[in-house]
Amino acid sequence: MVGNSIGKVFKITTFGESHGSCIGVVVDGCPSGLPLIDNDFNEDLSKRIPNEPKIVSARKEIDKVHICSGVFKGLTTGAPITLIVDNCEGISKDYDLIKDLPRPGHADYPAIIRYGGFNDYRGGGRFSGRGTVSIIMGGTIAKKLLSRLNIEILAFAKSIGNIEVKRTISFEELRKNRYSTVVRCPDLDIAKLMKKSIIQSKKEGNSLGGIIECVVLNVPVGVGDPVFDTIDGDIAKMIFSIPAVKGIDFGTGFESAKLKGSENNDQYAICDDTIVTTSNNAGGILGGLSSGMPIILSVAFKPTPSIGLNQNTVNLKTMKETSIKISGRHDPCVVPKAVPVVEAALAIVLVDHLIRAGFIPNVLKEQK
Amino acid sequence: MVGNSIGKVFKITTFGESHGSCIGVVVDGCPSGLPLIDNDFNEDLSKRIPNEPKIVSARKEIDKVHICSGVFKGLTTGAPITLIVDNCEGISKDYDLIKDLPRPGHADYPAIIRYGGFNDYRGGGRFSGRGTVSIIMGGTIAKKLLSRLNIEILAFAKSIGNIEVKRTISFEELRKNRYSTVVRCPDLDIAKLMKKSIIQSKKEGNSLGGIIECVVLNVPVGVGDPVFDTIDGDIAKMIFSIPAVKGIDFGTGFESAKLKGSENNDQYAICDDTIVTTSNNAGGILGGLSSGMPIILSVAFKPTPSIGLNQNTVNLKTMKETSIKISGRHDPCVVPKAVPVVEAALAIVLVDHLIRAGFIPNVLKEQK
Amino acid sequence: MVGNSIGKVFKITTFGESHGSCIGVVVDGCPSGLPLIDNDFNEDLSKRIPNEPKIVSARKEIDKVHICSGVFKGLTTGAPITLIVDNCEGISKDYDLIKDLPRPGHADYPAIIRYGGFNDYRGGGRFSGRGTVSIIMGGTIAKKLLSRLNIEILAFAKSIGNIEVKRTISFEELRKNRYSTVVRCPDLDIAKLMKKSIIQSKKEGNSLGGIIECVVLNVPVGVGDPVFDTIDGDIAKMIFSIPAVKGIDFGTGFESAKLKGSENNDQYAICDDTIVTTSNNAGGILGGLSSGMPIILSVAFKPTPSIGLNQNTVNLKTMKETSIKISGRHDPCVVPKAVPVVEAALAIVLVDHLIRAGFIPNVLKEQK
Amino acid sequence: MVGNSIGKVFKITTFGESHGSCIGVVVDGCPSGLPLIDNDFNEDLSKRIPNEPKIVSARKEIDKVHICSGVFKGLTTGAPITLIVDNCEGISKDYDLIKDLPRPGHADYPAIIRYGGFNDYRGGGRFSGRGTVSIIMGGTIAKKLLSRLNIEILAFAKSIGNIEVKRTISFEELRKNRYSTVVRCPDLDIAKLMKKSIIQSKKEGNSLGGIIECVVLNVPVGVGDPVFDTIDGDIAKMIFSIPAVKGIDFGTGFESAKLKGSENNDQYAICDDTIVTTSNNAGGILGGLSSGMPIILSVAFKPTPSIGLNQNTVNLKTMKETSIKISGRHDPCVVPKAVPVVEAALAIVLVDHLIRAGFIPNVLKEQK
Repeated sequence: MVGNSIGKVFKITTFGESHGSCIGVVVDGCPSGLPLIDNDFNEDLSKRIPNEPKIVSARKEIDKVHICSGVFKGLTTGAPITLIVDNCEGISKDYDLIKDLPRPGHADYPAIIRYGGFNDYRGGGRFSGRGTVSIIMGGTIAKKLLSRLNIEILAFAKSIGNIEVKRTISFEELRKNRYSTVVRCPDLDIAKLMKKSIIQSKKEGNSLGGIIECVVLNVPVGVGDPVFDTIDGDIAKMIFSIPAVKGIDFGTGFESAKLKGSENNDQYAICDDTIVTTSNNAGGILGGLSSGMPIILSVAFKPTPSIGLNQNTVNLKTMKETSIKISGRHDPCVVPKAVPVVEAALAIVLVDHLIRAGFIPNVLKEQK
Repeated sequence: MVGNSIGKVFKITTFGESHGSCIGVVVDGCPSGLPLIDNDFNEDLSKRIPNEPKIVSARKEIDKVHICSGVFKGLTTGAPITLIVDNCEGISKDYDLIKDLPRPGHADYPAIIRYGGFNDYRGGGRFSGRGTVSIIMGGTIAKKLLSRLNIEILAFAKSIGNIEVKRTISFEELRKNRYSTVVRCPDLDIAKLMKKSIIQSKKEGNSLGGIIECVVLNVPVGVGDPVFDTIDGDIAKMIFSIPAVKGIDFGTGFESAKLKGSENNDQYAICDDTIVTTSNNAGGILGGLSSGMPIILSVAFKPTPSIGLNQNTVNLKTMKETSIKISGRHDPCVVPKAVPVVEAALAIVLVDHLIRAGFIPNVLKEQK
Repeated sequence: MVGNSIGKVFKITTFGESHGSCIGVVVDGCPSGLPLIDNDFNEDLSKRIPNEPKIVSARKEIDKVHICSGVFKGLTTGAPITLIVDNCEGISKDYDLIKDLPRPGHADYPAIIRYGGFNDYRGGGRFSGRGTVSIIMGGTIAKKLLSRLNIEILAFAKSIGNIEVKRTISFEELRKNRYSTVVRCPDLDIAKLMKKSIIQSKKEGNSLGGIIECVVLNVPVGVGDPVFDTIDGDIAKMIFSIPAVKGIDFGTGFESAKLKGSENNDQYAICDDTIVTTSNNAGGILGGLSSGMPIILSVAFKPTPSIGLNQNTVNLKTMKETSIKISGRHDPCVVPKAVPVVEAALAIVLVDHLIRAGFIPNVLKEQK
Repeated sequence: MVGNSIGKVFKITTFGESHGSCIGVVVDGCPSGLPLIDNDFNEDLSKRIPNEPKIVSARKEIDKVHICSGVFKGLTTGAPITLIVDNCEGISKDYDLIKDLPRPGHADYPAIIRYGGFNDYRGGGRFSGRGTVSIIMGGTIAKKLLSRLNIEILAFAKSIGNIEVKRTISFEELRKNRYSTVVRCPDLDIAKLMKKSIIQSKKEGNSLGGIIECVVLNVPVGVGDPVFDTIDGDIAKMIFSIPAVKGIDFGTGFESAKLKGSENNDQYAICDDTIVTTSNNAGGILGGLSSGMPIILSVAFKPTPSIGLNQNTVNLKTMKETSIKISGRHDPCVVPKAVPVVEAALAIVLVDHLIRAGFIPNVLKEQK
């Protein structure tokens, strides 16, 4: 049942449950000499909670990271770095009712079978979106390493429900605006519609899904370890650890299935003495290796399974059909919260591959 | 640069290049007592090459498996099983021209950078679709194990280019018809259109992509090791090792991003004393665990990058822009060949997880 | 630089430094349904610190475990279990002097090179014996699992310096007496001599090594995964993570190198309908698999490198030869403290192998 | 039951049985650009079979390596390298008698239990010393990589039975003479006695064990990944995969348990601008990291379990006590054959660690 570690030479091991005492991560394999303090995590963690109570769960999550190991005099030592965030609220009463009534769309039912009913069911326990705090924390470290290679990861809400960004967004716009809107969409007009749509959905006791697009700039050519430890395969595996993810594609992705080879192939050219492709349908990945072009991927999130409407379920004790109406806090759409999680997840996978490929040394020099 | 093994307790390690002496796989962790002979692999390997020269590469691939280790008196011993298929044809002259001219859409360019130009470029070398023979062979063993649990894997061509199966296909139809058409589509009318479309594309020196859908029946509830070794994440990682894959989704997948929670949630009911869901938008996976419903996934394949048309590229030696026209054998669409590969890939991942979850013992009893 | 996890399906990840804020471990892969409370760890942790200030470092280590995750209603959930012990004392001034003067016999010098001088040098940092608290904690869980299979692990001080137990100790004596003496030797007379010897050594500002012998009872036949994941190889790897270990052998071990085959082979017989061997020179392991006989191993510990005498070293800043005299707390002999660590280490490796071999299920039933 | 791979970034996967069709290894993670041809393996493989029929098994092992993958134009490509040696002789009749009579000292009995009786029992099958050919082949590649760092591995027979080299052997003598004697002992006088002793033992139908010492020169300081992936722990795990190994220690090893700290600590000095220790009791390893001094280790081999004398065993079918007398080919002492195996095993572990530590690049430049 082991499965809470990921990465080969930059490895994170996560722990903690929604209503347990804390959420944490052990980051093993971080080079020594990286400046790191508790406050480094604040920005990323705050990005996870849009400052708009109307679109996120009412739960107060004031996350303050405590560095428990692996840092000395403000610098990483090469020893495993443990990061912990306490879970502030402990009101677990809400969840006692659902103990034997698996909520549709949640992991409740398979988890009860898998763990023989011993799983912590409060708030989804280990399966809660709360666990993504671990990924965010690991991602903060990973992003600090990537910034030394000028690698930048820019995710945003491409669509929420039926509201979709259809135009091309420039990297500059992405950098500037994606976190300026509570829905994490850099197109300010679309963002307004998305927000409205989420609020409406909440009112209806319903929920929405959406698509997050993510662009990674400046990944060197040739990163990845085919045939199995491909850059796309490892990204995909990591991304599926984020709750509610149901699909991933790279570049033109599912659309490429409809194109002809002559339309889909990215042809080569030289630009500023560098080999580039004049299109990027491949999304920066060829044969499981980075091509040097921006890595582009889309991640599909299903609508939050927690809804305020009546749903059919089964009482596992009595084995009778019944119904359930979920009350309590929940996000009407996880997409805004998931944007920084996708960025963090990407960062972790890339650092693991970049160390393997020799782009990040074991010991860091002071940064220019 | 290691990366040619996958699986935790049922692990395959693959080797071989398109134009090397052979293609092979070491299967480690197969329980002892499984009947296995050379001929067991014939059916699966022959499925890889549709019997229709008009739609596949002209290359003759008469694949005959040699079991080199791990089998004694026709039964697996618990030792690693090594399977090798010789590469019959060795005419490699065709590829000398492309040595310094990376083919658009292929892994040539990042591979040259990754391996310092030492990679075997003939026919894509290690990146060739030929390597999927390793997966097929591992899959044959995995499927023999799965059949003891009545687990069945049924993949088919859902779309090729713009030709798409739109109606629901019954499991029975899938079982019966998917390999009866050369394009591996169980809808006989659509199959004809697909075939025609591929032939037309070949004539034009062009190529097509497509979508493979795959259904897995009878997976027990609760298989998977969240949060990282999820059943969907591990399937995704494996699937991305298949050349030309650009996306994967489960259940309603990307479509679920547009649905409301009330539409997408699968509600529970009891049917024949068993807990089921009355829809299967989740595609049989919740929280990274199998739900007991059929696992359903779609895989997007880009059009074959090898096309007979002129394309722009760069001469890596001279660093001048130039063009290339690829001659020689190549498949105008990889989808038909990839159908059994997707099935094999799924089988390997599932066996690995089922052993971990305790559903397959270390030593097999004689089968009833 | 990753390397702080061990185990395949029962995996521990350790963290923490001697003078950091805490020592901890994440235990991933523990079956669900195991009763576990904070106090379960007290006994094992207290075994680590013999109640005799004359033979251990003056450092006060009142270790209180906090279960941070993976336990709900007093039972393991199947999620990763995180255990943390705070480091009480923080007086780190003692170590500033040694920053540039590597102590002979310690890891200081290679660690400085490996981590570019960023390692936490206080008290050896990550290399301190203090880190074995993580192994003890993981071991407590592992031993609870083993007890369900009646597997018992009995380690003891076989020799300290030149004082050695030469007679055979019965399992009963081991059970009863090994922790009744401060040196963890079940022979009460020899124990007195050992204690005296350690006290004398301390007075001289010197230190002693010793040999720990360990017996494991009731391991089923056939546990281990040759050829590389052998039971002896995996035990050895784990044991070398304990500071000051310099050697390990099984059964007659190094002595067997002098025996003839006819003397060393353990011949088979039947006893109580069970196959046994009439001797156990193999130490319970044949071909990397458990033989069903008691597993017996010896572990050599070098004398504590921290001594109060003047020693030659080099100033790494000036690259001049100089000398160092280590003051402060240190154990004159690590063997007594290491006895429960060896037991814990064995328990962790065995549980990992027993789960793989199918002897421990994913979900535990209530214990009879 | 998986367990036939070892290494993290330089990983070998071995396969094959004593009386199967072949013995092989897949080497994954070898940098590209290394010259490699079939004949490169001849020297190492021939070292395994001392040219003296009186001291080795009568079995003819003319081993010829076939490179099946991973090499193109005489250079490694970065793809997995598969090496296979055919098993020439197939006379398996000798072993039918022992099918139900486990041979004392062999893995027969636990293997039958582990694999449910499906294991290939001929000649020990997967447990045979014949399997070390895989390690030798992997080692040849590893040693070619190490030679670029001037790292040299020198193993020799330190003792056979009661005949022991007691004087210090210079590195020069080791280099020159260790393979010049059939017993692989560089002290020519002792070598004669060893040979005589083995011949005498063979005449008596008995067997001998012995100790192999191994020195590794020029390993850089700071290699290893504590706390679990230590250099000594990883070496130990690998060494225990060699049949008949019962113990390993480093530097003064078990002897250090009797020394005082003041005697055992290696003090630092400067020699030719380099930090050295004036003794090397640590055997080149401190805290799981290389210290820069020669790595020194001793490996204890038990006497060959196959002897020509009558021994007690049990008929597993009838569960009656009986006796067995093993006829056929077998080595009266495995030590001479094991000397190059120990060297190869060390090489493989070191390359894995040196790649992780950044000392060996992914792509090799032409050698000066």
